[in-house]
Amino acid sequence: MPDITLPIIGYVRSPLSQKFGIPRQPNLVDVPAVVEMLPPYDNPLAFEGLSAFSHLWVIWQFHQNKDCDSPTFRPQVRPPRLGGNQKIGVFATRSMYRPANLGLSVVQLDKVMVENQRTQLHIVGGDMVDGTPVIDIKPYIGYSDSLAHAVSGFAEKKPQAKTVTLSDQLEAVLQQYKADKQLTQQDIAIICQLLAQDPRPAYRQQESHTQFVMRYRQFDCVFFQDMPTNLVWSDIKPIK
Amino acid sequence: MPDITLPIIGYVRSPLSQKFGIPRQPNLVDVPAVVEMLPPYDNPLAFEGLSAFSHLWVIWQFHQNKDCDSPTFRPQVRPPRLGGNQKIGVFATRSMYRPANLGLSVVQLDKVMVENQRTQLHIVGGDMVDGTPVIDIKPYIGYSDSLAHAVSGFAEKKPQAKTVTLSDQLEAVLQQYKADKQLTQQDIAIICQLLAQDPRPAYRQQESHTQFVMRYRQFDCVFFQDMPTNLVWSDIKPIK
Repeated sequence: MPDITLPIIGYVRSPLSQKFGIPRQPNLVDVPAVVEMLPPYDNPLAFEGLSAFSHLWVIWQFHQNKDCDSPTFRPQVRPPRLGGNQKIGVFATRSMYRPANLGLSVVQLDKVMVENQRTQLHIVGGDMVDGTPVIDIKPYIGYSDSLAHAVSGFAEKKPQAKTVTLSDQLEAVLQQYKADKQLTQQDIAIICQLLAQDPRPAYRQQESHTQFVMRYRQFDCVFFQDMPTNLVWSDIKPIK
Repeated sequence: MPDITLPIIGYVRSPLSQKFGIPRQPNLVDVPAVVEMLPPYDNPLAFEGLSAFSHLWVIWQFHQNKDCDSPTFRPQVRPPRLGGNQKIGVFATRSMYRPANLGLSVVQLDKVMVENQRTQLHIVGGDMVDGTPVIDIKPYIGYSDSLAHAVSGFAEKKPQAKTVTLSDQLEAVLQQYKADKQLTQQDIAIICQLLAQDPRPAYRQQESHTQFVMRYRQFDCVFFQDMPTNLVWSDIKPIK
């Protein structure tokens, strides 16, 4: 079977240290991340002109997809948006379980940083886990890429965010972490936004009072559902 | 250096039989094309649900980029939009001369056709040459991909189309080809749209009265500039 080989040009550094909790599309959560370019692609000349663009396309590898070396093509997947039960064609989804395990994400470009002649892209809104290999960076071109009247099948509307409340116990712990400079107010806001997307697998999104753990940077965040549209962030602790 | 290997899942069949004349971004010209999926990726189950989307992303290979096997990374390119003289970082452009020779195009999905259990996608607005290898097909998701307020640097505005006039001699030849069913009115409209994008290299876009030839399907279309904003389509002949 014909194939092509492409270089990895950089890696994503993100506070999203595990797959659980990653937003299901880009720009649902304003999570900041950095694309660290690898030599020779980190040459600052290669980025001249880029800061005039507000948004970028990142093409990246679903490197945690363990099926990606499997020779078997599975034509259908069960997207979380359809409740995790209904099967649909893989090419009608952005699922990671696809022949070319490529992700495609539009992100905000915060700034292009150069340190010791090596380029790092500071981005916001990515949906890539920490350590994701980057294959290409392209500018977002509004007149060509932005289609206001596109019809998007089962993914027409943004997923409905849930509300997130903080337990009293958590509030006290967060105050301490903020005082110790281990967490910022921005970190806390991002964790709330991540939880509001409900990271739980679709088939468990009805479960009340079961505790789940989402990792953010070096912290494990504990949460559970108390009402169908509300999640309680109940605890946070350093990874053991 | 780390790299990844991806399968080719199909090929584009397009009337754009040579690179010269290909629109410089998708959706500038309503040219119809077909993505012929390769087995096993042509399985109709893999496309179930896709026709509910109006637009697709096609990730494809710039297979005519002869530099793609070169080990030398060139950090800057001269995009046609900047007149072909000014250099700019390759990651600030959609240039084909990039480390991962991947193209990214949003196209209209006309219909999903299945013949003998093999799937073909009829698309409109592509900027891929005939024979282009396809690496991935993803649905366009409006709420995530369409950014009305994106700022797009040097490519903020759609390129200005030129006007195209037909020579009297050409009109007579086209009548004949239409009568012989070798060309349709749609073909003629598409050729005019392609010429209106001015396929000439940026550094030759001031040349008056030099003849250029753009290939469309099995025809060579001859044209020249008579005024700075007008091109004359002067002749059409079958490829020798």
